[in-house]
Amino acid sequence: MKVAVLAGGVGGARMALGFAGIVPPDDLSIIVNVGDDDRFHGLYVCPDLDTVLYTLSGVVDPTQSWGVADDGTRALEVLRKLDSPGVWMKLGDADLGLHLYRTSRLAQGASLTDVSEELSHRFGVHCALLPVSDEECPTIVETAAGLLRFQEWFVRDRAGPAVKKLRFQAAHRAQITDRVRVALRGADIVVLAPSNPYLSILPMLEVGGMREALHQAPGLKVAVSPLIGGRAIKGPLVKLMNDLGVGSSNSDIAPTYSNFVDVFVVDEGDSRDVANVSHRCALRVTAMPTLIPDAARAEHLARRLIELASMRTTTGDAG
Amino acid sequence: MKVAVLAGGVGGARMALGFAGIVPPDDLSIIVNVGDDDRFHGLYVCPDLDTVLYTLSGVVDPTQSWGVADDGTRALEVLRKLDSPGVWMKLGDADLGLHLYRTSRLAQGASLTDVSEELSHRFGVHCALLPVSDEECPTIVETAAGLLRFQEWFVRDRAGPAVKKLRFQAAHRAQITDRVRVALRGADIVVLAPSNPYLSILPMLEVGGMREALHQAPGLKVAVSPLIGGRAIKGPLVKLMNDLGVGSSNSDIAPTYSNFVDVFVVDEGDSRDVANVSHRCALRVTAMPTLIPDAARAEHLARRLIELASMRTTTGDAG
Repeated sequence: MKVAVLAGGVGGARMALGFAGIVPPDDLSIIVNVGDDDRFHGLYVCPDLDTVLYTLSGVVDPTQSWGVADDGTRALEVLRKLDSPGVWMKLGDADLGLHLYRTSRLAQGASLTDVSEELSHRFGVHCALLPVSDEECPTIVETAAGLLRFQEWFVRDRAGPAVKKLRFQAAHRAQITDRVRVALRGADIVVLAPSNPYLSILPMLEVGGMREALHQAPGLKVAVSPLIGGRAIKGPLVKLMNDLGVGSSNSDIAPTYSNFVDVFVVDEGDSRDVANVSHRCALRVTAMPTLIPDAARAEHLARRLIELASMRTTTGDAG
Repeated sequence: MKVAVLAGGVGGARMALGFAGIVPPDDLSIIVNVGDDDRFHGLYVCPDLDTVLYTLSGVVDPTQSWGVADDGTRALEVLRKLDSPGVWMKLGDADLGLHLYRTSRLAQGASLTDVSEELSHRFGVHCALLPVSDEECPTIVETAAGLLRFQEWFVRDRAGPAVKKLRFQAAHRAQITDRVRVALRGADIVVLAPSNPYLSILPMLEVGGMREALHQAPGLKVAVSPLIGGRAIKGPLVKLMNDLGVGSSNSDIAPTYSNFVDVFVVDEGDSRDVANVSHRCALRVTAMPTLIPDAARAEHLARRLIELASMRTTTGDAG
């Protein structure tokens, strides 16, 4: 059973961890959002790729669920003392080592896909960690305070400025990589992780060739809702949905996925949403335990999702 | 009394510290070797400038006399794990913060002089810290093992490969900065610090315009020998002199300075060298306590050197 996961930040990393625990590495591809990527102090920083890498390799900081456990802040303290721009972005010392490596390799002409493969190898991660594109696709947040780059809005301004619109122009001009295309074509199941649909999944869907590749992907396509009891476990999803004037319920999220997803998974505690969502869009909806605070529960969810795809293979059910 | 010091690594930094303790900052210029500068992990590293900065600002590691006290190595450990080139260069985490700042500012078009001034200001160092040139002037070490960049020979290969010749082609094509020219012209005393003459002082003398500027400098020009009892306090000086086939005594060093220096200072313990050196070259030679392991003794030496210049001013002695 070959698995492809579309992953954003922490929710995506946890979902990846679940599959990594039960699927042979050669059969697992994690396709990762690059809309959050940005430059700090001249270094190319890929927060979503790194969160997945750190999570899968076991070095992730367990408290914040991103960055490296027990990391230092000596470099950042010097940059603060020097009044350097961008010091609001929390980059630990060990983390900077990785960004230095990536930035050097990119400057030498390596693709982000190449570099991610090198990093994975050296961190002992053996599944495929695939940036959705090798081109820069920054998500631009249009706010009442003007246009902001994603990290400016999210980290510097703590997701404060009301969001009018998300802009993905660079993604539209970019293309998904061949590795992503091949992974989607070969997958028995494509899972849209319980990441923020607007900030993590949508930026990937907007990359040139992605919607087409998803449409053509022969496997079962399953989206896991990031909402549990109407709230996101982490991050500014509900506030963002309010800003954007879209409701913050499963019935509001599901339609954004309904064009290219076969199954929409809500949390077992939200089983009352199953009928609502099914009614609102032509999607098969099912409830599962989607809270995945640790590897064991992430593996349990991964197993349940694989069962969905197995049943379909067995019964010929198209979802 | 305006002072200009030509400084290389640790010896230069200590001499600078001595003057900084007794001369008002506006009257003190430290002109620093850039022949050791190199790129690591995409960052522009200036070991001599940084040693002077860290020493004058009091953050220097007291054991090794370079780098930042109590610095971490987390970034370097990750770079090692990633098998990145150049990890033999010991760059601490706080140190990397400074290199990130400098590299970003240079990429924005700031000169090395501008950046050094910004760094000094933020580190609370108020004398002028002046790179000898804003252009890259790498010292190339011609060895039995081929051509090596200075840090490759010095740090990676631990000064092991026998040196046939030092090459300064880039320095010949470069120019000293206007700030250096002005500092030399205005100084009542120009001190060549007890740095390695071949690796720290000579690379500065080879920069376009430097010998001329020194010749024209109206102040007393004093070179302090780095030898004490025939040995260098730090670094590979004696081995290098043996490699180069030049003797490793004060009588061997003094002639390299004799064209543009008025006074050659040997250690008080080497007063027997005074006559030898005077005999060998047309230089005034004097003995002083040149061992400067701490600020107090560095200040004492600085005071003695200033006395030399004061006597000259008073008596009209041209040295």
